[in-house]
Amino acid sequence: MTGKLKTAILGATGYSGFELARILLRHPQAETPLMLQRSSESSALTNLADIYPAISGNGGYPMQPLSWSELEAQNIELLFLATPHEVSRALVPEAIARGIRVIDLSGAWRLHEVQHRAIYGFQDTNAATAAELTEKAVYGLPELNGDRLPEAALVANPGCYATSIILALAPLLAAGIVDREKGVISDSKSGVSGAGKEATARTHFVSVADNLSAYSVFGHRHVGEILEQLKLDESELIFTPHLLPIPRGILSTIYVHLKLESKPAEIETCFREFYTRKPWVRVFATPNLPEIQFSLHTNYCDIGFCLAKDGRRLVLVSCVDNLLKGAAGQAVQNMNLMYGFKEQDGLQ
Amino acid sequence: MTGKLKTAILGATGYSGFELARILLRHPQAETPLMLQRSSESSALTNLADIYPAISGNGGYPMQPLSWSELEAQNIELLFLATPHEVSRALVPEAIARGIRVIDLSGAWRLHEVQHRAIYGFQDTNAATAAELTEKAVYGLPELNGDRLPEAALVANPGCYATSIILALAPLLAAGIVDREKGVISDSKSGVSGAGKEATARTHFVSVADNLSAYSVFGHRHVGEILEQLKLDESELIFTPHLLPIPRGILSTIYVHLKLESKPAEIETCFREFYTRKPWVRVFATPNLPEIQFSLHTNYCDIGFCLAKDGRRLVLVSCVDNLLKGAAGQAVQNMNLMYGFKEQDGLQ
Amino acid sequence: MTGKLKTAILGATGYSGFELARILLRHPQAETPLMLQRSSESSALTNLADIYPAISGNGGYPMQPLSWSELEAQNIELLFLATPHEVSRALVPEAIARGIRVIDLSGAWRLHEVQHRAIYGFQDTNAATAAELTEKAVYGLPELNGDRLPEAALVANPGCYATSIILALAPLLAAGIVDREKGVISDSKSGVSGAGKEATARTHFVSVADNLSAYSVFGHRHVGEILEQLKLDESELIFTPHLLPIPRGILSTIYVHLKLESKPAEIETCFREFYTRKPWVRVFATPNLPEIQFSLHTNYCDIGFCLAKDGRRLVLVSCVDNLLKGAAGQAVQNMNLMYGFKEQDGLQ
Amino acid sequence: MTGKLKTAILGATGYSGFELARILLRHPQAETPLMLQRSSESSALTNLADIYPAISGNGGYPMQPLSWSELEAQNIELLFLATPHEVSRALVPEAIARGIRVIDLSGAWRLHEVQHRAIYGFQDTNAATAAELTEKAVYGLPELNGDRLPEAALVANPGCYATSIILALAPLLAAGIVDREKGVISDSKSGVSGAGKEATARTHFVSVADNLSAYSVFGHRHVGEILEQLKLDESELIFTPHLLPIPRGILSTIYVHLKLESKPAEIETCFREFYTRKPWVRVFATPNLPEIQFSLHTNYCDIGFCLAKDGRRLVLVSCVDNLLKGAAGQAVQNMNLMYGFKEQDGLQ
Repeated sequence: MTGKLKTAILGATGYSGFELARILLRHPQAETPLMLQRSSESSALTNLADIYPAISGNGGYPMQPLSWSELEAQNIELLFLATPHEVSRALVPEAIARGIRVIDLSGAWRLHEVQHRAIYGFQDTNAATAAELTEKAVYGLPELNGDRLPEAALVANPGCYATSIILALAPLLAAGIVDREKGVISDSKSGVSGAGKEATARTHFVSVADNLSAYSVFGHRHVGEILEQLKLDESELIFTPHLLPIPRGILSTIYVHLKLESKPAEIETCFREFYTRKPWVRVFATPNLPEIQFSLHTNYCDIGFCLAKDGRRLVLVSCVDNLLKGAAGQAVQNMNLMYGFKEQDGLQ
Repeated sequence: MTGKLKTAILGATGYSGFELARILLRHPQAETPLMLQRSSESSALTNLADIYPAISGNGGYPMQPLSWSELEAQNIELLFLATPHEVSRALVPEAIARGIRVIDLSGAWRLHEVQHRAIYGFQDTNAATAAELTEKAVYGLPELNGDRLPEAALVANPGCYATSIILALAPLLAAGIVDREKGVISDSKSGVSGAGKEATARTHFVSVADNLSAYSVFGHRHVGEILEQLKLDESELIFTPHLLPIPRGILSTIYVHLKLESKPAEIETCFREFYTRKPWVRVFATPNLPEIQFSLHTNYCDIGFCLAKDGRRLVLVSCVDNLLKGAAGQAVQNMNLMYGFKEQDGLQ
Repeated sequence: MTGKLKTAILGATGYSGFELARILLRHPQAETPLMLQRSSESSALTNLADIYPAISGNGGYPMQPLSWSELEAQNIELLFLATPHEVSRALVPEAIARGIRVIDLSGAWRLHEVQHRAIYGFQDTNAATAAELTEKAVYGLPELNGDRLPEAALVANPGCYATSIILALAPLLAAGIVDREKGVISDSKSGVSGAGKEATARTHFVSVADNLSAYSVFGHRHVGEILEQLKLDESELIFTPHLLPIPRGILSTIYVHLKLESKPAEIETCFREFYTRKPWVRVFATPNLPEIQFSLHTNYCDIGFCLAKDGRRLVLVSCVDNLLKGAAGQAVQNMNLMYGFKEQDGLQ
Repeated sequence: MTGKLKTAILGATGYSGFELARILLRHPQAETPLMLQRSSESSALTNLADIYPAISGNGGYPMQPLSWSELEAQNIELLFLATPHEVSRALVPEAIARGIRVIDLSGAWRLHEVQHRAIYGFQDTNAATAAELTEKAVYGLPELNGDRLPEAALVANPGCYATSIILALAPLLAAGIVDREKGVISDSKSGVSGAGKEATARTHFVSVADNLSAYSVFGHRHVGEILEQLKLDESELIFTPHLLPIPRGILSTIYVHLKLESKPAEIETCFREFYTRKPWVRVFATPNLPEIQFSLHTNYCDIGFCLAKDGRRLVLVSCVDNLLKGAAGQAVQNMNLMYGFKEQDGLQ
């Protein structure tokens, strides 16, 4: 296995972390990752296959405690953090200081503007270091920031909702054809794995099945990163997340007004040109629209649209698998670009 | 059973018709309804309990062919049509001519404006009669048109989506506080029974489960009745229906801009006053929002809202059970008001 | 409301307790029940409608702390316990001593034989009283023990699985036609509400959806009551419960060998005669079989069967709604018989 | 791509055929398969990606009409038939006559005994050829018949239920420890894709969701192949299939009596030895049991068990993904062994 990339995952017991482990286990350019757990976690967890019998067989994947000296001894080059944001906030400075690159799947390092960050309530031990790292962190949406990834020490992997929304809007905003004054609305729906693995009243099967609910209206954490990446004002975006009775998948229905009357072909061209040579975005020919099933278990972001007869009112539909393009798949896509691998490696 | 209302149902084998049958079977003011089937239907269908074993026992409910003379012989006063719109369009003139009142659950008689009706492609045998009936038909949303029901010969029961949207918007539009120029958007999601009982590729379990899809964007039949009832222009409404992986229930997330900065308490008051003494609408105190489960298997329309800090951007959430308040329950509510019964009779 | 039965429910916040509250709220012979909570429970819970918005409106249902003197002051005649078995075990002696009859939905008082009770690990404060109450408690399966209910002070409401299994087997065992030596097998499948409202890794939506799992093989608590009621030896029954990805409903597939070659008509007659004038059991004519949907949201136990061509091997299928005939509905059926009401009252 | 295996698929539009196409598209030893359609099928179907947008992009996969001369011109060596059994029955003689090997996913060639075949009602044009082919056909369960695959011209790919049941029972029956006189029972549950892609009343979402139903009791087509492969008499097996409200996955709960009192470790050893070097069977250490999720989207058959304290009564639980190990995955596993590839190729 010489020559392959040496990685470690902290948090492989969560949904995103587990998907990440599965991808890295079959990635042609990466060694079997170290599976790490924090000492504060239940000491009984010792083998990933005991938690996820789906990968049992062959002895499974023993987990080991996080130890910086051990990571250095094993020449780990890249650390994936699939941890709560406060844990990522605490660990990243140490990793970077030791020369280990990091892809962080939490929201800890995605935001540059203080007012957006307030919602997370970070308490940094060393504010100066945190500010410096925030400055250097690359928002890991490869279709937008791919050219900065090869040099990045710290990649802040985007939120799942944010991925589906930013990728649908970025081409139109870049083309300057959106009437921002009329506001942009994203009505988004997510499967339950997006709410994490913790058992709560909200994730109980009986609460979710045969149901649909809106939540965090005007108050979801992903708003900040969407605004920053799309350079929108807070007053220009409404984002309403909903909890779907399915395990995984996100569909965002996005409402936009155009400045000038347009034709469907122009909109389609705008998308296709923007995503030329971007292997993980699929643009649908109108009137075909993506559905959650189409991108499930893939790393694709699927985008489709319908334009009203007036040529001004545009409905976009964007789908991702929240655990893949919305989390672990995108993390590996980022890794591929950081290390000069093929963008599709390990993701097909 | 003397003195009780004599009714008949054509179409009790469909989802809405069956719910209607269940309600009428236990309605304190109505006799057991005649269960009718058209002669063109599979002649093998002879007992409703064979189709819906949930109501088996006691000999079931034998169905009989539709015969006008038989309806007259049995002194049927009220006929429910749970039939395709072209069937309702054909049968209603005959029923009305014979002095039988009709509550029609299809879209056949809901629309007064020709351009909205075009999507149905009606082919009337007698255009003059059809025009006259269209004129006289009452759109059966009791919270809006309840005072016209006692005199109505023909009630056009509203669409399920339309019910959830009209009831959420009517109080605000009546109060004149909506900035209609900025447009109103309803992002609506429905369970599969809304698509009817026909087995199609679209209603196959494997197509629906673990999925969500938008459909009929800018082209759904319910748009016309929403526009007419709310007196909106076509350019002022976007309505996007989605198919949810649940059997029943509708949730509409509705986006509105207000003309003036408002406070949540003002919005709540607007709703509460509008729905005073309307037993089948529940207004939620912000920030509580309805969920599909809350109104499932009930005749309630639940309405809640969130107002942005700017006091201008308003998100409404409205839920109904598409087979009850969205169809059969509302039909019985209409019947109750047509005959002076208590509005809640048979629906609790 | 004078003359109506005065009841109280402890545990209306759980799934079974809530269904019980809903039934009693519309029961023609009972007053609105007192909704009680234990002092040890979260003090913030003060209104049942806040926990279950489905019943919101009209001020909701304020809960009050359990107080024996208050129950006496209000002349409560019947107390429903929808509580964990250890709580029921502790409270029942006090209630009975004060002359309040009890219907207990837990497993605390169902078992007469010590070896079956061991699995619960009861720790009784007063062993003699507990033994005496155990002796007097009536196992509340009305189809078997209905004649003992009018005099019962303490009714032990059966388990949901047990209900589906006992009712399917009792007629055949009573007729003496089962070859018990060959063993009886019940392969049972239950919706998630049967596992209770507690949020656990096992009840997390993502664990249950798209899944099926067997559990507690050879070790489920309901085995004891099935054996006792059917007078079977432990070696004569295998019971395998499974967790279904649905909110509610139980289907038991039961395998039996007959002593002598039989005909389907004989089996059907055996069932129909046993359940003559039992309104809450429906016997299906072979080859029709019950499905979970048929009895969902009803108090029916549906029973069907298929007999092999050899006339010896019999497959039974039995369905109940685990929260109704499997819990709250059966509790009210028991109440109806305890007080001489009609067996169907409040349950249709 | 020289040197890779040239294959064709007839029936890639069905669920199993599509899974097969997906696997072959990424199989390291096989060229992109020809996607064939019968001339009798809807002529409008011309691109597999139009039917399954999940594989859209890159121009999709154009389908072409089945033409024997074209297959020969393109040097197709192996033809997969994912077609109804009567179609397979008609086409296989032609393919074999032309020297094209066949893996047939239908039930057309699985059965050697006439009485088991009767249920299919085959009408062979050339009875002698059909008899000869039946004789030569290898039942493609690689764990049992792997050594016959390299020489096989015609492989009859097993049924999904049959795979789960045969693999669970074969080791015990081979060891001679099963008390066959007491009978073997398989209570099996399958996701809806097992019922095929045709839209019927039975596969309608509303019929399946929130439901469970038993069907074809004592009359399912897979019984014959189970009996033949396990050399059981009809009187020794009861097989009850159930329809689960999930898209895919099978769990069989199997009940067996042992001749002699055994210990769990002995049972586990029996399984482990039988499946030594069989990469696609995973034996679970008791008391761990497989669940449907564990083998979903994999080619594994997972087997676990619980032994009663008496050491005689054994409950087996066996899971497969019905579209993979139960159909397309197993077909590729068969292909791998027919051509000397690694058994895991293309399946990980």
